Amino acid sequence: MEKGLLIVLSGPSGVGKGTVCSALRKRATDLTYSISVTTRKPREGEVEGVNYFFRSREQFEEMIRKGELLEYAEYVGNYYGTPANFVQQSLEAGKDVLLEIEVQGALKVKERFPDGIFVFLTPPSISELRNRIVGRGTESKDTIDKRMDTAVEELSLIKHYDYAVENDQIDAACERILSIIVAEHCRKERVLPYLTKWIEEVR
Amino acid sequence: MEKGLLIVLSGPSGVGKGTVCSALRKRATDLTYSISVTTRKPREGEVEGVNYFFRSREQFEEMIRKGELLEYAEYVGNYYGTPANFVQQSLEAGKDVLLEIEVQGALKVKERFPDGIFVFLTPPSISELRNRIVGRGTESKDTIDKRMDTAVEELSLIKHYDYAVENDQIDAACERILSIIVAEHCRKERVLPYLTKWIEEVR
Repeated sequence: MEKGLLIVLSGPSGVGKGTVCSALRKRATDLTYSISVTTRKPREGEVEGVNYFFRSREQFEEMIRKGELLEYAEYVGNYYGTPANFVQQSLEAGKDVLLEIEVQGALKVKERFPDGIFVFLTPPSISELRNRIVGRGTESKDTIDKRMDTAVEELSLIKHYDYAVENDQIDAACERILSIIVAEHCRKERVLPYLTKWIEEVR
Repeated sequence: MEKGLLIVLSGPSGVGKGTVCSALRKRATDLTYSISVTTRKPREGEVEGVNYFFRSREQFEEMIRKGELLEYAEYVGNYYGTPANFVQQSLEAGKDVLLEIEVQGALKVKERFPDGIFVFLTPPSISELRNRIVGRGTESKDTIDKRMDTAVEELSLIKHYDYAVENDQIDAACERILSIIVAEHCRKERVLPYLTKWIEEVR
């Protein structure tokens, strides 16, 4: 069976990764969405294995020790991580998996899944970002410089990615991501092994 | 201005390149379709610069001498070729150009446009092609062998291409080709120069 594709959706903070991912969940129901594991308590309505895998701190730390997490981080006293098993098993079952993750985590995932498809969401209206940063002229030069540095630093991470998708409109961004998945399935490299095998069988 | 993409649609004879290309013309009106030059007489209703560029034999041979054709071939006493100028100018104007062409011609185009996106249309229901060839058992072993050789030879050309698109249904094939074009526009390599330039301008 053909293995599924791992699509890693990332980008600078505030770019709208979560919003785009939620929109994809509604549209692309044939995609499998990676589920994070966390040590924080479930909120009202959150379901184990749907929203998160909920684990104790001890269990989480054991997952870390056993190398069962693709990446993890600690925020406000709670751990959040991506279980490798869920991703691996879904891919092997031929499912395309979408993993939405911040930039540092994505680079970690790339170490384990170099064949993943890494999509970098760029800020909406990148052509207008200059105006936003230089702005109305009310900011001090220091503030502008600092913002520029952050923007440049974040954007420079694109070099580790395969695709850059502009998040100008949520629907348009979703459309581009879904096109990328269709196109990747058509890549000669992916089709060739099956064709070759088929030719050999027929001969 | 960002240059357009050259999309070369090819594949074995009988795979339905022409039919898929006609369907694309109706759907994707923002694509520019490469126009061939020919020495045959215009048929009823054919328009210069729309269906073909009509030229005399002398004019065509001068185009060959001047290297003005990406590729050409002679069929039934008439020349057919692809003028380089039309493709080049459209790309430079930022237009995506679709060129539908047989396999040998496509390889010629690749020499001039190595950056083109080469899409190989595979036979419909490739998984069923075996049944078709081995067939109802009414064919001689020689005929089956010859067909298999041709099929294998044609399919082996996929290695020169970037994408393999199965022509199981015309609409589905069009959808995949259009997805490939969208995805290629999002490739990091294409976006990076513009981002870098933008960052430098802002700094």
